[in-house]
Amino acid sequence: MKFSRERLIRFAHCDPAGIVYFVHFFDMISQTVEDWFAEVLGTSYQALHVENRIGFPIVNTQCEFVRPCHFGDTLAIELAIARLGGSSIEFAARGLVKGEEKFRARHKVAMISLDTYKALPIPDDMRRKMMPYVEA
Amino acid sequence: MKFSRERLIRFAHCDPAGIVYFVHFFDMISQTVEDWFAEVLGTSYQALHVENRIGFPIVNTQCEFVRPCHFGDTLAIELAIARLGGSSIEFAARGLVKGEEKFRARHKVAMISLDTYKALPIPDDMRRKMMPYVEA
Amino acid sequence: MKFSRERLIRFAHCDPAGIVYFVHFFDMISQTVEDWFAEVLGTSYQALHVENRIGFPIVNTQCEFVRPCHFGDTLAIELAIARLGGSSIEFAARGLVKGEEKFRARHKVAMISLDTYKALPIPDDMRRKMMPYVEA
Amino acid sequence: MKFSRERLIRFAHCDPAGIVYFVHFFDMISQTVEDWFAEVLGTSYQALHVENRIGFPIVNTQCEFVRPCHFGDTLAIELAIARLGGSSIEFAARGLVKGEEKFRARHKVAMISLDTYKALPIPDDMRRKMMPYVEA
Repeated sequence: MKFSRERLIRFAHCDPAGIVYFVHFFDMISQTVEDWFAEVLGTSYQALHVENRIGFPIVNTQCEFVRPCHFGDTLAIELAIARLGGSSIEFAARGLVKGEEKFRARHKVAMISLDTYKALPIPDDMRRKMMPYVEA
Repeated sequence: MKFSRERLIRFAHCDPAGIVYFVHFFDMISQTVEDWFAEVLGTSYQALHVENRIGFPIVNTQCEFVRPCHFGDTLAIELAIARLGGSSIEFAARGLVKGEEKFRARHKVAMISLDTYKALPIPDDMRRKMMPYVEA
Repeated sequence: MKFSRERLIRFAHCDPAGIVYFVHFFDMISQTVEDWFAEVLGTSYQALHVENRIGFPIVNTQCEFVRPCHFGDTLAIELAIARLGGSSIEFAARGLVKGEEKFRARHKVAMISLDTYKALPIPDDMRRKMMPYVEA
Repeated sequence: MKFSRERLIRFAHCDPAGIVYFVHFFDMISQTVEDWFAEVLGTSYQALHVENRIGFPIVNTQCEFVRPCHFGDTLAIELAIARLGGSSIEFAARGLVKGEEKFRARHKVAMISLDTYKALPIPDDMRRKMMPYVEA
């Protein structure tokens, strides 16, 4: 299974060359991860933080920029899990405009307690909900 | 007295028209206000927050964009106090490149307790340090 | 008539005080203006720029921050025209969460040629489409 | 040889957890690369773009976030060249606060013509100036 969200490329995302300034892609990937949490876990990213005191800091992120994205493009950001660890999730993300690949990324987050700042094992019920997104 | 800080206009500040995207000016004004606090009060903005539990949320901000700023410009941001209230400071800010005015802004912050979120009267010793910056 | 768009307040919009860092509101207002152009004029903001060589630089913007917005809030951004000039549009914008006012803004843009950088009179057919949004 | 620039971590760089939101690190790395170009080539990044019609789009970037950075930290961003290709430069970057490593990054840019958008071989005189920064 893949999770996908669309984003309109705005004037403000673009640089003097008329293409998306690269840091915005990381922002979009991170927001898609937030949306994935909400959909998959059935609870908002915000509730996880505020009520459950669980955070998902980014451990490692990597992106290859294959082709430029332009003002006015509708970018689909696809998400799957490349590797589901004991307390970490490594997402494989792709950005596509009309089926054409714009970027390929790896984005690894760790589940931590916001009280102790220590890694937490991903509970079994969460893990079960995440499993369908793990790539073969 | 005026307080002034210089900022280099970066590639990332500019939009497809090759000029600074307006929101970055607000960021620059706010950062200049942080620097002013550090210089005038002799304590970092961070220390005020973390140690003194004092915050300065923005109440009102207004900016007139007189001329565009370009990639590579060195922008001087000038700050003075247009009005010093009981618990608020209204800054008058200007942006200049080689003496040419780029923007004129008003930026009003209020001093609050980060514990009660209520307005705090600006203490006399702080007020004294701020006075030289009040415009005639 | 009012134009309205919803935005989810993201983790990345919020500052160490857990509330939206003010510059993001300007970004959201500007993006809502882009959406308004697309809906009202029936042509994308991007097409106006690239095909028609028309731009709408911001002349003046002002915002009063009435109450803080929090991570997880769904913010409705409402737009109407406070004043429709010969070649300028002054929007009145409001931000609301569950009907509670968060900010009130004025945001003035001018219609210019991207070739001459001179102000252009808003053509009659555009003006007619804008008229329903002019506040009484 | 290493190139190094310091950046003050601002209120606006930090998220509700009080630490730097990760995308800002990419921005800082990219700005340090701009500064490196100016110092090493003796010409501003802006002049390269506007006068020489040379651009350096990001091909690939990767960052490992070792420890969090906080509001008020002075972050030193160190740059060296991990690999100098025919028309690409792969930077090795590190972020340090008081000598403690905060992030490790690889950031690869390619030299292209802004007229043809094709890769350009890095000229010998540029290459000579870059050589001292290539890691052993």
